[in-house]
Amino acid sequence: MTVLLIAGSPSERSRTAALLNAAGQRLSFRGAQVETLRVRDLPAQALLLANFGHPAVIRATAQVAAADIVVVATPVYKAAYSGVLKVFLDLLPQTALKGKTVLPLATGGSPHHMLALDYALRPVLQSLGAKNILPGIYATDAQVVINPEGGYHVDADIGDRLDDAVNTLVNEHLSFSNAGRFSSVPFSQVRCSV
Amino acid sequence: MTVLLIAGSPSERSRTAALLNAAGQRLSFRGAQVETLRVRDLPAQALLLANFGHPAVIRATAQVAAADIVVVATPVYKAAYSGVLKVFLDLLPQTALKGKTVLPLATGGSPHHMLALDYALRPVLQSLGAKNILPGIYATDAQVVINPEGGYHVDADIGDRLDDAVNTLVNEHLSFSNAGRFSSVPFSQVRCSV
Amino acid sequence: MTVLLIAGSPSERSRTAALLNAAGQRLSFRGAQVETLRVRDLPAQALLLANFGHPAVIRATAQVAAADIVVVATPVYKAAYSGVLKVFLDLLPQTALKGKTVLPLATGGSPHHMLALDYALRPVLQSLGAKNILPGIYATDAQVVINPEGGYHVDADIGDRLDDAVNTLVNEHLSFSNAGRFSSVPFSQVRCSV
Amino acid sequence: MTVLLIAGSPSERSRTAALLNAAGQRLSFRGAQVETLRVRDLPAQALLLANFGHPAVIRATAQVAAADIVVVATPVYKAAYSGVLKVFLDLLPQTALKGKTVLPLATGGSPHHMLALDYALRPVLQSLGAKNILPGIYATDAQVVINPEGGYHVDADIGDRLDDAVNTLVNEHLSFSNAGRFSSVPFSQVRCSV
Repeated sequence: MTVLLIAGSPSERSRTAALLNAAGQRLSFRGAQVETLRVRDLPAQALLLANFGHPAVIRATAQVAAADIVVVATPVYKAAYSGVLKVFLDLLPQTALKGKTVLPLATGGSPHHMLALDYALRPVLQSLGAKNILPGIYATDAQVVINPEGGYHVDADIGDRLDDAVNTLVNEHLSFSNAGRFSSVPFSQVRCSV
Repeated sequence: MTVLLIAGSPSERSRTAALLNAAGQRLSFRGAQVETLRVRDLPAQALLLANFGHPAVIRATAQVAAADIVVVATPVYKAAYSGVLKVFLDLLPQTALKGKTVLPLATGGSPHHMLALDYALRPVLQSLGAKNILPGIYATDAQVVINPEGGYHVDADIGDRLDDAVNTLVNEHLSFSNAGRFSSVPFSQVRCSV
Repeated sequence: MTVLLIAGSPSERSRTAALLNAAGQRLSFRGAQVETLRVRDLPAQALLLANFGHPAVIRATAQVAAADIVVVATPVYKAAYSGVLKVFLDLLPQTALKGKTVLPLATGGSPHHMLALDYALRPVLQSLGAKNILPGIYATDAQVVINPEGGYHVDADIGDRLDDAVNTLVNEHLSFSNAGRFSSVPFSQVRCSV
Repeated sequence: MTVLLIAGSPSERSRTAALLNAAGQRLSFRGAQVETLRVRDLPAQALLLANFGHPAVIRATAQVAAADIVVVATPVYKAAYSGVLKVFLDLLPQTALKGKTVLPLATGGSPHHMLALDYALRPVLQSLGAKNILPGIYATDAQVVINPEGGYHVDADIGDRLDDAVNTLVNEHLSFSNAGRFSSVPFSQVRCSV
């Protein structure tokens, strides 16, 4: 199970990156191979001028293609996902998320902007052909706290939601991988001659 | 595999109902048990006054609860789903689509309103807790033709999209049902003694 | 200045109706002629079957046509406006709001659904050709309280927002009515020698 | 009447820029002072890292602040506005469009994405406090043609819509500017005896 975490915050350190990291750690713990792509680390000029042929853009696109699961995290700015995230998504092929399961994450200053996940981000992810987009997780500033020394802390509610989402991802991946190949019944119970 | 078709058109005969029927026939053919719920047949007063306790509303809610797959069809009016569909969805419990796969269908006069599926209908279905919402199918008036004698015809493009969606529904249901039970290999190839 | 208040709640007494009434009273106080249209009072069968020719539907449509300003109020259900409101909007002509200024109001259980105003309701009102749609006002349950004896109370924040919106409506209407007629300068300051 | 045209295409030459230019020329012709801001000309690194203090960002923000009217043009990518446009909007103050009238323009490959104007771009412009956002104009590739030698051509339908929008902008600006100053009636028709 290969996972790509895409960070859409323009900041070096951000609640968005912390929330994304909290998801990534849970996935690692469950045995997934996790990579992180921070859009802000890509060459800015290539993104702004939609330079599809830039080596770093090609590499980033390949990372998306190689992932089974994509976790997309964005701050909510101006009632929607960040422009930083969108410049990257704009560079992907039309069906870049085909066959993939996506988990959307967002952080916002107040609870008022929660619906940006379903009304703004989801239609964009949908247009990229995602196989399944899980319910998004929205965290307010109070729910993801960055410590002065650099660590971070997510509150219990967000922790539970991340756990649930990771369980769903793991289970769906297992059932999907097994479909059409071999049984997911414990081996000891199967006597087949297919 | 139990399927509920929900028709959200206020008209007796409509392109929306025809498109929905075309989906239903394909699902029947694949062995699904298909029921149809036309919102316009429910008691109007109960819907308009949100009378959750009306026997017909309780029965309709139970039909949703019993379905593995829900196909929701709506005309596009005023750049969104019909009010008729929404009065029914408003009466459902908050998690009425939990664990279910949903296929959204819409008909519109011109191609310009296609995005109403992803920007208007999808967030509402998402709020009801759907496990997975497949890519919607949008048909223009030219693509679903009602014959004077009462039949209808969907064009090749819509036919193909319906076939693909039905394949996805069937495969997903099989893999889901089988997860933890037995293989989804065609019966003829299986010799099991589990 | 003629104002139509449209109430989109299915309930007899509702926070939505209270918020709408609070807007209406402020407009009355400023000299507007205010009428109220409760969708739940219209004949349910006519709405559900889109019976454009029903006398009550014709009358309601005429009320919309006669208004300079339309205030639309809805509860947020399933992350969007109510179906009750939408069945009525669906019956209006495509350009029913042409030349009119619209104030959208919504009530919701928690702050999380505020964006339903801009992502769900606004595109629908826009599709009806509204000249201008003011910023919407979203009130949580804690901000609009219904008293046991039947009255209601809006908190200071909502009161201020309603005052601002009403000021904008009145000023815009004056400047619009006066354009091409006569000056809106205070009488005492006018010295005409044009 | 000061107008700022904001171009959100990543390309040097684009249908989006052509459509925007066609709007700008009409506004110039009506006496407006028109400036153009191409997001792609701003320093890429400053945009991507949200460097609010960069001199070019400060200048661009001041251009927005100085405008009475803002015309925003974007290609539709992935069912929404471009990331390039959004990275710039993200850098503006929360109320950057306060008191301003906005005309949204979009170009897309097919008619299917028209609603991106009202469901994706409009809520973002609304969040910036715009006084009024006119109905958007959506042009398909067939409606804005770029000539090999560098010019462009918009078809009659788009031309008419641009004319209407420019009329509305000019009239609204006149009535707004005049409110509280002097009559906008043709001088010859004024007989004051207030």
